[in-house]
Amino acid sequence: MKTNLILHAGPPVLWDHMCGPLRGAVIGALIYEELASTPQEAEDIITNDDIQFAPCHELGAVGPMTGVISSSMPTFLVKNETNGNISYSNLNEGLGKVLRFGAFNEDVIRNLKWMEKVLGPSLSAAIRQSEGIDLNIILQKALHMGDECHNRNVATTSLFTRLILPNLLRTNIERTELQEVSAFLAENDHFFLNLSMAACKVTMDATHGIDNCTVVTALSRNGTEFGIRVSTLGDEWFTCPAPIIEGLYFPGYGAKDANPDIGDSSITETRGLGGFAMAAAPAIVSFVGGIPADAIAYTKEMMEITESTDSSFTIPSLGFEGIPVGINLLKVLDAGILPIINTGIAHREPGIGQIGAGIVRAPLECFKKALVKLSQSI
Amino acid sequence: MKTNLILHAGPPVLWDHMCGPLRGAVIGALIYEELASTPQEAEDIITNDDIQFAPCHELGAVGPMTGVISSSMPTFLVKNETNGNISYSNLNEGLGKVLRFGAFNEDVIRNLKWMEKVLGPSLSAAIRQSEGIDLNIILQKALHMGDECHNRNVATTSLFTRLILPNLLRTNIERTELQEVSAFLAENDHFFLNLSMAACKVTMDATHGIDNCTVVTALSRNGTEFGIRVSTLGDEWFTCPAPIIEGLYFPGYGAKDANPDIGDSSITETRGLGGFAMAAAPAIVSFVGGIPADAIAYTKEMMEITESTDSSFTIPSLGFEGIPVGINLLKVLDAGILPIINTGIAHREPGIGQIGAGIVRAPLECFKKALVKLSQSI
Repeated sequence: MKTNLILHAGPPVLWDHMCGPLRGAVIGALIYEELASTPQEAEDIITNDDIQFAPCHELGAVGPMTGVISSSMPTFLVKNETNGNISYSNLNEGLGKVLRFGAFNEDVIRNLKWMEKVLGPSLSAAIRQSEGIDLNIILQKALHMGDECHNRNVATTSLFTRLILPNLLRTNIERTELQEVSAFLAENDHFFLNLSMAACKVTMDATHGIDNCTVVTALSRNGTEFGIRVSTLGDEWFTCPAPIIEGLYFPGYGAKDANPDIGDSSITETRGLGGFAMAAAPAIVSFVGGIPADAIAYTKEMMEITESTDSSFTIPSLGFEGIPVGINLLKVLDAGILPIINTGIAHREPGIGQIGAGIVRAPLECFKKALVKLSQSI
Repeated sequence: MKTNLILHAGPPVLWDHMCGPLRGAVIGALIYEELASTPQEAEDIITNDDIQFAPCHELGAVGPMTGVISSSMPTFLVKNETNGNISYSNLNEGLGKVLRFGAFNEDVIRNLKWMEKVLGPSLSAAIRQSEGIDLNIILQKALHMGDECHNRNVATTSLFTRLILPNLLRTNIERTELQEVSAFLAENDHFFLNLSMAACKVTMDATHGIDNCTVVTALSRNGTEFGIRVSTLGDEWFTCPAPIIEGLYFPGYGAKDANPDIGDSSITETRGLGGFAMAAAPAIVSFVGGIPADAIAYTKEMMEITESTDSSFTIPSLGFEGIPVGINLLKVLDAGILPIINTGIAHREPGIGQIGAGIVRAPLECFKKALVKLSQSI
């Protein structure tokens, strides 16, 4: 990655149209990269056109919420062993004030530096000690453990941590650093989210670019616009304004504080996890709202707009039926059922962070635009 | 513990009446303790009356399957912070040929020695580094992660491992030993079972010995007899022959190979986990038999014979209703509904090990005997 390139979530967007949290994260990344020392300096070099922006998706990457990835950040590399393609994700920073929600204070930058100097190299060494970590096996087990692998990641994170720590201990990493890494993994119940997303990205990229295939290969949002990609329609994004999320807010916050929907994390729904697999994770309703029966209803509803179920990713409470996979553009429009996404909610101002979580539907307009393009290409 | 004392699961039983796997585990414990060097030597010192036997339960302890605990084995100590009482359990050996299923070959003894020299001291040092590990919080979280905390322990074990490893790294334990311990915890999805049992024991012991309280405070089996204890009826066991388990057998084995029901692990059902909490763990049916709807039905059925539900141990798929707790002797007899237990199945011969898992009901006769005693004591 070039040092002046900043990746972000969702379809393409330039500075003038970026939402508050994305601007906050971009400013944070420029300070973290030492390209700027203050928010004003960061804005100056941006308005000077010294910084390039690109969607994560265009470089085979995904990032949650603002999805900001800059050149010094460590990333995971995930390989699709069947198809040969690869994907990337950044590393999860934990909860609270974090860059992905648009926060950029000193603690945020210090944590990013620690991730670059300690966490990234430690995990890299541990993964090299292993024979590779099979992310699909972790995801499959976690569906039997109450995760839907988007907003509940405690099972995946715990399984990953159990797998990685013996490998960490086989490296030459110093003991004090191992303590820090193991404490970080013990405290962050969402650490695996970024790996879940990269695993979904590497699966869906293998589905992209197939002639006459109307499967949706990406659902993503930059906080200003929601965008979708369709297998047969190439790299074009079909976009419309990002919707507001219905959800549960942290104390002191409400819908008036909420940024519109943001993040690449809806790649999990694109692959049949997250909102599509909520039947596997009834406990999630205490985080995103609703009752456990809603969770089951969402999964069953998504079976109406998908091509198949994935028999290797099963949901025990549905009699071990597979997750719904392969959102078909035509089925969405025919059934009038929009893909369901569960998601975090960012404050609309930069520098604040997460204020809640909830449920949102992919907006109809994106699918209509894709259909128009499809009809023109026949 | 005196060096010539051997604890075992279930109600009291002497050598002549011990089942095959319990005899195997006793022989293994005597070889492990270096009180005998061959199975024949072990039998000789037993028939010489040089060895004393007692139920784990009588010393505040619990052990899965044969439940054999000897004086050199490391144990967990669990404290009931509300009531002040304590309980103990041995450490889980993993699957395959293990003492608790009656195996006693060289590998079994070597593993027990490693647990004594490495695993026990390491975990002890780690727990001393921590402020104590809150077992109830782990159990509560695991009920939202597909464990019922008796035969599914992957969530509890993963959560425990994530918690303990940062503490392990803060000890002076050598790195090679930490590697061994972390690899052992990574490979054994049932490690937490013994802690789950000790947590249930320390809760149920606080319920024991209350005047006019007809709550069942222990369900347990020694492989020959099934026994129950009732709060108001003191330390007497009400026993009858242990039943045969309906279950799924490993390839090459069947019901003709099965030992009758064995183990203290039904203390989990006594406290509302295990079979009583199966609605939280629909994936368990692939291990013990049945379909996910059965799992929900078992939990609802157990609500008919219990005093209450525990609102701090909730089951998401039942709308966050609590687990059924406080098996009431009178309700069992009045409703004619017997407590459901899910359990491992041991081979009836010593030295072989686990051959399956399944479902069993506590036998009616124990409850009838307790009622007779109750009627005499009024």
